[in-house]
Amino acid sequence: MCQRPQIPAQDLDLLVSDIFRSVKLSGDEALLKYAKLFDGYNGPSLEISQDEIDAAAQQVPDALQDAIRLAASNIERFHSSQVVEFPKVETAKGVVCWQESRAIESVGLYIPGGSAPLFSTVLMLGIPAKIAGCSQVILCTPCDKNGFVDPAILFAAKLVGITRIFRLGGIQAIAAMTFGSQSVPTVVKIFGPGNQYVNAAKKKATDFGVAIDLPAGPSEVLVIADSSAVPEFIAADLLSQAEHGSDSQVVLVTTDRAVAEKTLKAINNQIRDLPRREIAEKALAASRFIVMDSLENCFAFSNEYAPEHLILSVSEPQKWVGKIVSAGSVFLGNWSCESAGDYASGTNHTLPTAGFAKNYSGVSVDSFVKKISFQQISKSGLQQIGPAIEVMAEAESLIAHKNAVTIRLKALQND
Amino acid sequence: MCQRPQIPAQDLDLLVSDIFRSVKLSGDEALLKYAKLFDGYNGPSLEISQDEIDAAAQQVPDALQDAIRLAASNIERFHSSQVVEFPKVETAKGVVCWQESRAIESVGLYIPGGSAPLFSTVLMLGIPAKIAGCSQVILCTPCDKNGFVDPAILFAAKLVGITRIFRLGGIQAIAAMTFGSQSVPTVVKIFGPGNQYVNAAKKKATDFGVAIDLPAGPSEVLVIADSSAVPEFIAADLLSQAEHGSDSQVVLVTTDRAVAEKTLKAINNQIRDLPRREIAEKALAASRFIVMDSLENCFAFSNEYAPEHLILSVSEPQKWVGKIVSAGSVFLGNWSCESAGDYASGTNHTLPTAGFAKNYSGVSVDSFVKKISFQQISKSGLQQIGPAIEVMAEAESLIAHKNAVTIRLKALQND
Repeated sequence: MCQRPQIPAQDLDLLVSDIFRSVKLSGDEALLKYAKLFDGYNGPSLEISQDEIDAAAQQVPDALQDAIRLAASNIERFHSSQVVEFPKVETAKGVVCWQESRAIESVGLYIPGGSAPLFSTVLMLGIPAKIAGCSQVILCTPCDKNGFVDPAILFAAKLVGITRIFRLGGIQAIAAMTFGSQSVPTVVKIFGPGNQYVNAAKKKATDFGVAIDLPAGPSEVLVIADSSAVPEFIAADLLSQAEHGSDSQVVLVTTDRAVAEKTLKAINNQIRDLPRREIAEKALAASRFIVMDSLENCFAFSNEYAPEHLILSVSEPQKWVGKIVSAGSVFLGNWSCESAGDYASGTNHTLPTAGFAKNYSGVSVDSFVKKISFQQISKSGLQQIGPAIEVMAEAESLIAHKNAVTIRLKALQND
Repeated sequence: MCQRPQIPAQDLDLLVSDIFRSVKLSGDEALLKYAKLFDGYNGPSLEISQDEIDAAAQQVPDALQDAIRLAASNIERFHSSQVVEFPKVETAKGVVCWQESRAIESVGLYIPGGSAPLFSTVLMLGIPAKIAGCSQVILCTPCDKNGFVDPAILFAAKLVGITRIFRLGGIQAIAAMTFGSQSVPTVVKIFGPGNQYVNAAKKKATDFGVAIDLPAGPSEVLVIADSSAVPEFIAADLLSQAEHGSDSQVVLVTTDRAVAEKTLKAINNQIRDLPRREIAEKALAASRFIVMDSLENCFAFSNEYAPEHLILSVSEPQKWVGKIVSAGSVFLGNWSCESAGDYASGTNHTLPTAGFAKNYSGVSVDSFVKKISFQQISKSGLQQIGPAIEVMAEAESLIAHKNAVTIRLKALQND
């Protein structure tokens, strides 16, 4: 029951390898060729100018500008709380160890274009990058045949301080950030969602030493409901996940069969007027309603399923927080709808899908830093731990490791 | 100058795919076949019994037991400081968001056997796993033809609370942990160093949804030295890195040509009696001594090189900590030798190599947990942020996302 819909595994490896080779070899020339081929854009410029970015704001309605600002402020507030200062620890007398975070210097954000301009993802990736202090943050997003990018994307990018934006979509965008070109700087970590082409390209990028945010998979939600749940709310939440894509999965696990039945009815009502009804219907066809005999079992199932989004439509949801082992983002109670987390509560919406909540975290400020260990050992500190190092190094047959201590301990004896 | 020695990229993909397929299909039967083929071990049992583990301690000399206990205590003290409690943040009135860490439930540690029994790595992986609270920690390590594993490995495993240890090496060990078998449980994250076979297998494991600790690469050290450095100490540190493998790289960057010359002399002296002299000589052949005109430039070069280990043999090393952008583990001053971090200072020795210090962290307690986001939104909280969500969802053409808010706001109006 934890199985996700099987996506026909199209082997894109040849196509991805071809485009990567071509971009590595020919840089901008190849990128412009693919922009023409795939997006119908006939050049001349890959980079969107500062004037174009500035002008975009004027095309974004005031209400949307305000909404984006409110969301950005909440996201910034929450992600700022993720910045951690580690203590210095004296592990043995004279041996002081600590960690410090450093921003990953150059990162690339991929924002899909197509039917829905995901400006919310610009906030979700750009804000933690800014808080982490990444010195170079670039953004790639596909343009239309006239070279236009949705103004809301440009507005959101400007709001979070991203100044370098490229008209690049698909595999070629990922290749450009992997190798760099005349126009596009190289990055060492690539973030962002995408279709199967983009995901195959991100996996290929790791062959060249580039890190990526998360392995790919279709989006999903699991709702745990008891008799206190509101079926109309559950239906709306399930549909908001189902409209993402036909490979999305929505799961309801409940202790109350009546809730399941009422939710099904509510879905049938609410789905009628949805513009993305066809997509939602396909997703629902591969989805499940499960009735369990206890909330304990609902949570056990959820932990095994490891959902990207987990909604707790139960009375006293706080009581169950400690039982949650694997999930991406959790929504407590009837008023915490999933779309709040998608846009404006402040949490990140770039989350582990497809069961990856068992072994991966969603995007946070952590995703934009690396942690360096430091140790400062005094003379007496080395006298404390040196003999143990000598014994262990010798037992591992690493005599030069031992010598590095021995030569210092001898120098101290002669001190 | 940041180039690492090129390892002839042997294509192991076919071999790895074969063994993975066979282990997935035939489980223990395949594992026992490969144990015989590659390790000469003719069964019957893949798992090492508790009696064998208990007996091992009696074969480990007291001095080594004490050294391992001291190292374990320092490692535990430092890694305990990495446990983070995140605050709850009210991002908007009535909207509370927070993160909580959860242990990755089932993890696998790979410990190479061969010439050097790396019991130190058992501590470096087992201790953070224990602190994180992983409920299942298994260990795979190759045995000799009689089924024996170095007793120090078993002793260290017992000390850190690992109870399930398997006689499994190489590709088949990684395949076993990926798919599970009759004897071996499945894990969702695999840790540990290995040769090219193990590393190719770890990469393959990620195709099946298993996470891994770090991408692979040969070990390296970079020493920054000014005229306060002690050439004999630098030589010993460079050699302790060079003896790891012929593909290791050691780099000295100094503002003082005399230090470079004296270090070279000291290396020629110290290398004579090393048991692993041949390996060290090969590594030194691909290594570099660089004289720079200022310490600023030394640090700029180091950040570009992004060394796994960075030794600061300079006066006032603390002054330079803030300038370090990319490194795995940093050793401050003349008495902080790299082998201290390899064994007993308390920091972890599983670190990013090959320039991966630019975009990856070394192993820490973080590597054994995932972080879950939570949000609890009150009625008034949803009234605060709901309208912004509606505007944004509509602008992204995700009407079901909007509806999930609208239906709730309407219910509140009627409240």
